[in-house]
This record gives sequence, structure tokens and C-alpha cells, in this order.
Amino acid sequence: MKRIITIGREFGSGGRELGRRLSEKLHIAYYDQEIITEIAKRTKMSEEYVRQITESNPTASFPIHIRHTFYSVPNPVFQQCITIYSEQHKLLKELAEKSDCIIVGRCADYILQDSNPFRIFVYADAESKIKRCIERKTEGENLTESQIKKKITEIDRNRAKYYEFFSDQKWGSKENYDLLVNTSNADIKKVAEAIYDYLQDIFK
Amino acid sequence: MKRIITIGREFGSGGRELGRRLSEKLHIAYYDQEIITEIAKRTKMSEEYVRQITESNPTASFPIHIRHTFYSVPNPVFQQCITIYSEQHKLLKELAEKSDCIIVGRCADYILQDSNPFRIFVYADAESKIKRCIERKTEGENLTESQIKKKITEIDRNRAKYYEFFSDQKWGSKENYDLLVNTSNADIKKVAEAIYDYLQDIFK
Repeated sequence: MKRIITIGREFGSGGRELGRRLSEKLHIAYYDQEIITEIAKRTKMSEEYVRQITESNPTASFPIHIRHTFYSVPNPVFQQCITIYSEQHKLLKELAEKSDCIIVGRCADYILQDSNPFRIFVYADAESKIKRCIERKTEGENLTESQIKKKITEIDRNRAKYYEFFSDQKWGSKENYDLLVNTSNADIKKVAEAIYDYLQDIFK
Repeated sequence: MKRIITIGREFGSGGRELGRRLSEKLHIAYYDQEIITEIAKRTKMSEEYVRQITESNPTASFPIHIRHTFYSVPNPVFQQCITIYSEQHKLLKELAEKSDCIIVGRCADYILQDSNPFRIFVYADAESKIKRCIERKTEGENLTESQIKKKITEIDRNRAKYYEFFSDQKWGSKENYDLLVNTSNADIKKVAEAIYDYLQDIFK
């Protein structure tokens, strides 16, 4: 049985760390930022730009329209958003075809639905997410607690919009996943072990 | 660490079987129908009536009101609904105090929040729930597929209303649980083993 695992995650929920730990335990490939790098290479756009587009709300760059008529000049940002998504779609299919893997974010659960992936969603309460963001803050990043809270809300809203725009499904809604894990006040290392053991039984 | 596990479940999702299997594997007490029996004993109402009340929408038996004024005669069904809930509240607290246990339904995750229970919610797609209901149908029950579908929708709607009325929380909404498990097309025995192994790590 092929093991394709997708992880949707709220910002600050520890989903990325969980994915990395799981891939190490399962000895399978792990894709997260690598996807951005590869798309950037294929589309000849900068990594930073690709990241920005895939973390933004696509509807914000909809073609300009006045009343019921679309403006004749297409919006280039929207066009690039579609190009990047198409490339992402193609790339994820290639990766899932190649070997067992874990893919974090990128609408992977939706794009790879024909491969029957095991779809995990990781979430936590606001307090835990803020705490995790403070603990892992990158050097030079000096945001106040309220700024971090705002950042989390904004990133999660954009992730939801991006997912919903391309999948026509609700991000984080249980019917789209096999297992939803609440990481509030949880030790991610422990949760990774628990999910690993859960999967051993499911993939048996 | 005390192990109190609560299981919320959609009708036909296999949540009851899961609870029973888990309790056998963990060697801890399991409460489901036993709660109804004990409440009936304590309130001197019939088991069938207690079951009916705890599976109904409490707002359907709200005191009668005309415009903004509550009718002076209280609705006896509503009064009994409150009496049963109070007894349920008291009983669950006693059970959780007594020993490690698994409690299925009965707003247990909400009532026992001070005991920090591990809160599981079990759900499945309509097709799987119908299939499970057909497989486990009791003798003499001859419902058509469309009647079963209607029954599932009605029971789940009432469970949601009952939970929401007493907890002021949304039934099945991920923020109220620690782990949500999709049992669509799943073998409950396998899922029980997976959750058992998951819990072994969490309760370590």
C-alpha cells in the first residue's frame, strides 16, 4: 500500500515540525519548502515571489471588473497565481508518483485525491499558536504578542482562501480529512510518535 | 495520569463499537447505555423515556411563550429534560471520579472538562453511515435506504441540538475535541487499534 500523507495545518500549530518528524520515523520523502523552490525553478519566478503568491488570497488578484463586465486587460498577478497553481498541481502528481511521501500544505489532499492520500489536519487554539510562534521566532523578528496574533489570523485566512479557491472545499473542515489533531498545549514530538503509531495500524 | 476518554459520535459512524473495543484494550470502564439505566433508576422515569429525552432536541420542549412573555404554565417535558440532564451531570462526575473510563455521548467532553478528558469525535460520510446501519440492523427493522438516511440525519440533528443547548458549543466542531477520526470505509477494529496505540503515546 502506497503511503502518501498530506498535512494541512494552521500557522503555529506545529504541523511542519510534525511532518518532518513523521517523515524521519517513516523513512519517506518530505516536501514543504522544496515545492516552492522547484516551482520557482520551473516558472522562472523568484522563490520569494512564488511563496508570496501561494500564501496569498487568490481572489484579491481577480481580474478587474466593472459591474458585470470583466475588464479587457487581464490582471498579471492573477495569471501568475494560476500558472503557479498549475505547476504545483503537476509537481505534486509527479512527487506522489515517484515514491511514498509527506506533503505539507499546497492543497495536496485535494490535488492528490486520486492517489487516496491519508489526509491529516493539524490545529490548535490561539494561545498555543502564539506561544509556538514566540518560541520559534526567527532572528531579528521582534513582533509583539498582538502583532503575532494578527499575523496568525491573516496567514490562516489566506491559507483558507487559497485552499477554498482551488479546491472548492472548506479548509480545516473535518469531512475533507481522515484525522484532525489538536496540538493545543501538546508536545509535537509526542504527537508525532502517536500519529506514527496510528499510521502503522492504518497502513498495515 | 488519569485516563478519562470521551467519544462524541455521529450515528452510524461506529463510535459505540470503537468505544467498547478501546475500553477492552485499555482495561478501563465503559459507559454508554449504562448511563441511561442509572438515570432512569435515580429519577424513577422509564429507561425508554430517559433515552427518548436525551436523544431529542431540548428546544422542541421549551416552555410555551407568546410574544415576549413565557406562558405561566411550565412545560413538564422541558422540566424533565432539565432534571435528566442534571442527573446525568452528577452521574458523569461520579463515574470519572471513581476510575479511568470511556464515556460515549452524553455531553461528557463538556461535563467533564475539569477532569481534562481526552476528547474524541468520530464521524463518517453518509454512504458509510448508511452501510453500517444496514449491516447492524436489529431484527424486525426493515427500513429502506432512504428511510435510514432520514433517520441518521434526524438523530444527528437532535444530538447536535442537545449538545449545543447544554454546552453552548458546536457539536462535532474541531475546537471542542483533541482528535477527530473519519471512519468512512474504515474497519472499526483497525481504527480502535490505531487509536489505542495513539493513546499509549499520549498517556505516556
